Amino acid sequence: MSKKRILRVVKIGGNILDDARRLHEFLVSFAALPSPKILVHGGGKIATQLAEKLGIPQTMIEGRRVTDSETLRIAVMVYGGLANKQLVASLQALDCPAIGVCGADGDLMRAHKRKNTPIDYGFVGDIETVNAPLIDRWLGQGLTPVVAPLSHDGQGQLLNTNADTIAQEIAQAMSSAFHVELIFGFEKSGVLLDVNDPDSRIATLDLEQYQALRSKGIITAGMIPKLDNAFSALKKGVRKVIIGQAEHLSKLVEGQEGTSIVWEKTSPR
Amino acid sequence: MSKKRILRVVKIGGNILDDARRLHEFLVSFAALPSPKILVHGGGKIATQLAEKLGIPQTMIEGRRVTDSETLRIAVMVYGGLANKQLVASLQALDCPAIGVCGADGDLMRAHKRKNTPIDYGFVGDIETVNAPLIDRWLGQGLTPVVAPLSHDGQGQLLNTNADTIAQEIAQAMSSAFHVELIFGFEKSGVLLDVNDPDSRIATLDLEQYQALRSKGIITAGMIPKLDNAFSALKKGVRKVIIGQAEHLSKLVEGQEGTSIVWEKTSPR
Repeated sequence: MSKKRILRVVKIGGNILDDARRLHEFLVSFAALPSPKILVHGGGKIATQLAEKLGIPQTMIEGRRVTDSETLRIAVMVYGGLANKQLVASLQALDCPAIGVCGADGDLMRAHKRKNTPIDYGFVGDIETVNAPLIDRWLGQGLTPVVAPLSHDGQGQLLNTNADTIAQEIAQAMSSAFHVELIFGFEKSGVLLDVNDPDSRIATLDLEQYQALRSKGIITAGMIPKLDNAFSALKKGVRKVIIGQAEHLSKLVEGQEGTSIVWEKTSPR
Repeated sequence: MSKKRILRVVKIGGNILDDARRLHEFLVSFAALPSPKILVHGGGKIATQLAEKLGIPQTMIEGRRVTDSETLRIAVMVYGGLANKQLVASLQALDCPAIGVCGADGDLMRAHKRKNTPIDYGFVGDIETVNAPLIDRWLGQGLTPVVAPLSHDGQGQLLNTNADTIAQEIAQAMSSAFHVELIFGFEKSGVLLDVNDPDSRIATLDLEQYQALRSKGIITAGMIPKLDNAFSALKKGVRKVIIGQAEHLSKLVEGQEGTSIVWEKTSPR
């Protein structure tokens, strides 16, 4: 196991994309991170703003956007176009050989349209396969994939897909070839024992500790799905999941900030 | 020279992108064309329509769009996002392993912002370098690049770039490794001796014949820049330039339709 190289899959969300200073700070850190690495991004407020300007009403159900055909067009324009290409151009300027793709490119992420029950989310894809061999070849060529949160169904239909899910699916798919560290950009400095105290971060969290904190009600409802997904990723071969502020990426990777989530603290590194 | 493989670089314009039936016909032909091949596309009316809806005034000077920062955002969204990813998803459905990129991806096309004199076209790029080795590697992996008409300056700035120019620059750059055939989609069935008679197409046109027809005024003003560019590409190593209706791609390639432009008709094939 120790012969595998480390691959870092970093997911950044909307908030950092909308903040030029933090975004620049993140991109400098990301560019400096040793290869191989992959960036997965969301879309930020731009999609919502564009929908407003175009008079396309947006429906959110349980925090998820319902993707009708007009909203899908916006997602493809903003996620697959504007956000993706601007990130790539910025990384190129920092000497990071980025290549911007979505799930249709190279058949990277094939999905099926989510079934309609109980809620119809529209053109939303649930990923079936990740083209890990192609990603592996790109990484081998020194390229850094920058992945927009879109998949396709193989029948010509693009599908909106949650960026966290995409990062996790890619991380899991690459785990047979690499020691994968999956890093989620987050608003807070990590998982906190006290949500109101930024200094109360848990540096390392394993399953046993998570279950204990959760049963005591110390880990709050908003964090539970994120952490459940993190442990699910670890179960599927990801070596470590890190949650923290993306602009402090180098410190997250070194464990000086954020929360590192591992299956067992005693597990061999 | 005869040991080189044929590479076809196909450029399609806005009119076919805006016509679902013709586009489908083209994509089926393109997917059936043997690899290696590259597709370069423009943006169609969608960019203009989106600018209208968003209330961004568009300025055209000598048939070219002036690209202010707002217009560039639209170009990146529509060319780099919507058009590019929809083409890729459609090609994937036709078993063509497409990968959609712009000039920033993999540092594919580096450009400088066009100088301001005499007309300021804004964020428009004139290409300096094409990353031919990277394209070669992708082609070697069986991938089919689908290229959006955007370049970058290496300093983080995306630049709008004419799709015909991009197709020509890529064709020229690939000519040291391949026999390149550069195919331009066109509204008419080829270069016509009589613009009002679709049956008057010239099947093959060489430089000598072109100069003769031009001096007699038979080739009209609108065609002259296109043909000058074609002969310029031939001079820079492209083997053949074909002009004709993109939806009849297989016939264009076989010489049954369109106009094949070659340096000399007697030149070795």
